[in-house]
Amino acid sequence: MTVAPLDDLLAALPAGVVVTDADIVDSYRWDRADMVEPGTPLAVVRATCTADVQATLRVASAHRIPVVARGAGTGLSGGAAAIDGCITVSTDRMRRITIDPAAMVAVVEPGLLNAEVKAAAREHDLWYPPDPSSFEICSIGGNIATNAGGLCCVKYGVTTDYVLGLEVVLADGTALRLGGRTVKNVAGYDLKRLFVGSEGTLGIVTEATLRLHPLPPPATTIVATFDDVVAAGRAVTEIVGHVRPAMLELMDRTTVRAVEAMLHMGLDETCGALLLGRSDAGGSQGVAEVAVMEAACERAGATYVALTTDETEGEQFMAARRAAFVAVERFGSMLIEDVGVPIPRIPDLMLGVEAIAARRQTLIAVVGHAGDGNFHPLITFDRHDADAVARANAAFGEMMTLAIELGGTITGEHGVGTLKQPWLRHQLGDDVIELTRRIKQALDPLSILNPGKAC
Amino acid sequence: MTVAPLDDLLAALPAGVVVTDADIVDSYRWDRADMVEPGTPLAVVRATCTADVQATLRVASAHRIPVVARGAGTGLSGGAAAIDGCITVSTDRMRRITIDPAAMVAVVEPGLLNAEVKAAAREHDLWYPPDPSSFEICSIGGNIATNAGGLCCVKYGVTTDYVLGLEVVLADGTALRLGGRTVKNVAGYDLKRLFVGSEGTLGIVTEATLRLHPLPPPATTIVATFDDVVAAGRAVTEIVGHVRPAMLELMDRTTVRAVEAMLHMGLDETCGALLLGRSDAGGSQGVAEVAVMEAACERAGATYVALTTDETEGEQFMAARRAAFVAVERFGSMLIEDVGVPIPRIPDLMLGVEAIAARRQTLIAVVGHAGDGNFHPLITFDRHDADAVARANAAFGEMMTLAIELGGTITGEHGVGTLKQPWLRHQLGDDVIELTRRIKQALDPLSILNPGKAC
Repeated sequence: MTVAPLDDLLAALPAGVVVTDADIVDSYRWDRADMVEPGTPLAVVRATCTADVQATLRVASAHRIPVVARGAGTGLSGGAAAIDGCITVSTDRMRRITIDPAAMVAVVEPGLLNAEVKAAAREHDLWYPPDPSSFEICSIGGNIATNAGGLCCVKYGVTTDYVLGLEVVLADGTALRLGGRTVKNVAGYDLKRLFVGSEGTLGIVTEATLRLHPLPPPATTIVATFDDVVAAGRAVTEIVGHVRPAMLELMDRTTVRAVEAMLHMGLDETCGALLLGRSDAGGSQGVAEVAVMEAACERAGATYVALTTDETEGEQFMAARRAAFVAVERFGSMLIEDVGVPIPRIPDLMLGVEAIAARRQTLIAVVGHAGDGNFHPLITFDRHDADAVARANAAFGEMMTLAIELGGTITGEHGVGTLKQPWLRHQLGDDVIELTRRIKQALDPLSILNPGKAC
Repeated sequence: MTVAPLDDLLAALPAGVVVTDADIVDSYRWDRADMVEPGTPLAVVRATCTADVQATLRVASAHRIPVVARGAGTGLSGGAAAIDGCITVSTDRMRRITIDPAAMVAVVEPGLLNAEVKAAAREHDLWYPPDPSSFEICSIGGNIATNAGGLCCVKYGVTTDYVLGLEVVLADGTALRLGGRTVKNVAGYDLKRLFVGSEGTLGIVTEATLRLHPLPPPATTIVATFDDVVAAGRAVTEIVGHVRPAMLELMDRTTVRAVEAMLHMGLDETCGALLLGRSDAGGSQGVAEVAVMEAACERAGATYVALTTDETEGEQFMAARRAAFVAVERFGSMLIEDVGVPIPRIPDLMLGVEAIAARRQTLIAVVGHAGDGNFHPLITFDRHDADAVARANAAFGEMMTLAIELGGTITGEHGVGTLKQPWLRHQLGDDVIELTRRIKQALDPLSILNPGKAC
């Protein structure tokens, strides 16, 4: 007599770990990719430890049931959206952290929020740099699954640059430790970095050893406005060619207006684009770097430039930038792009986005990490208007095609999930997709890990 | 009638590319891992382009012949040492480079030397940071194969941190482009980073797109001496906990004496250890950082501390550090270790190395990238004295065991090759070795790519 998968799961895990209550399960079906309609899981496993994840994957392997890993559910590409009949493994209870200040590492379970890692490090005067705009609500596990970026990446890199070691559970339930605690390590293949950004399709991360830095010097912030986004793009190219800004963010007119309408900060709503730069070089070097940024903005035709060394004032501008998604979302539903292009192609991307918005009669607000060429055009629409939805979806696809044509990428930091999956082959080509499949097959031969996503 | 492999190879490649002259072939058998006795290749392919590498791998696949990729032959673990009957693919003729200064990337063929990439970037006021001590004679292809580090890694990271894209040729001759030109890119698995550090066992790199930085501000250099390496290790822990040095290098007494005997710079030969630090923060921040380093050295018991903002003088100290291998080699044959430990374990590593040297009655000079915990104990011996060779080999193994016991790694930046291969399983464990084999099998099912090395 065969045992039903759910009975097996309940038998394999401690009481309270397996959740089947329909209302609670429903709350774990979604991530923040609104346009992805999730399936309904067989059950949600609210894992408390590595052994829970191992037991779950053994049951899933035995029954060939898909498994979707989920952190805080803030993903924007549908990577954590449920698949019908899947087991969703939520790591929201796995929240232990240990800081080793002398070794300058944090050993973290995946359910901890990014902001909580930052705060724990700060107690030791240390710093965990990666800072997605959602850092207060997104989990480290999700950050690792998508190789999340943020505002500081232009100088400090993305999540993968801070992952020294990982514990992962493979499809068959084997738990492995990859990498370690040393900054440099070339013993064997760089397997930990294969798991970073793999969106739960190769294994489930149950612990990460993260590198920490000393706190940086106080930042100086520069704000510049331009008549249009193309001029702002020119300023970006010149800035990053000469100094290494700690942040370099762009908001177009629509975004500026949306943020101003929400926050009432006195931003210039008539400008065509606003550039926000920061140097944390400190001391006279910080002043010199900001002077370089200022001169670059003026040469590119800035209509206004202001500097501040006041940390609170600088933080307010950063908060304005981080509020952009929420502010623009007040216009209606939103498809969030995440395209990246080489720095000199930023003006072409900006013009291309404008053309797509005009052609598709869709309001697109542009905000982005200009310093590394990674932009989030925010496609707004009324989801009850079928034609508007169709036009938004068309614009969404055209923007990815444009990014590929400009030598760029369909996703810089949000991941492929299901939302961008149809464009992946176009960017990578058949041979790379084939290589990807070979690796997926080698690690997950039954294809139970987040099937149909990311690759 | 079957065609002989060599005939196939000659037919598949343009005239002059396949080398069979025994003397010339002999010069391509070796890398710089002296203790590895290389085999004799069937032929050397001096590839001129990607198509040459593809044709070679197709022939090798058809005949199941091992293929060893070789850059400049400066490897220290035997990764490029020939295997009997192999085809050695030398990339020493593949030397094209294009700099795109606006995109801040260099597109480089693998045969170009690291120093040549740096020089080409510098013509555009740009900087390629990775700087192995051998940077003037090692190739970018070899740097990628071993994920080479160097002196600047403590602040600027290792080779993999600068690889935005790769062209690789797989075992079956398929050429693929991985990654791209953007700083951030999470479209698909991070396959390029799987190839970096894989020592030619997964594919052969035929082109790399490397990230460049603006030139850093002028550096301030600090030199401090200590009575012993343990005190110097304490200073290191305190320094990296508070600032981000651009370099932080350690030489023990034996190394200082060897360098002084060769260069006559006036180094203090009575000191127990010399620490060499640098800040390139620039301006008053640079001064502040060096003051932090100075105070840390004094608290750790430094016997002498001196600073210089003179670039030439600073470069002389760096040259002294870079000369360490050559200087110590004058004592006899040398086995070069490459162990890494978490920063707070540096004193334990130093004491452990001293104990091994005493127990094995072998002179071991210690030099290393102290700021990232990566050390090169240099085991010297007379290779004509069988007992001395045995003691050196024993010390070599014991040092790796020690590093593993201290939570570290058997290789930080030189690679596993054949020399360290016997210790790899001890560090990684059976399950990680099994995962490694699965990936190797997926990418190189006939196991023709550098078999028996690295994994």
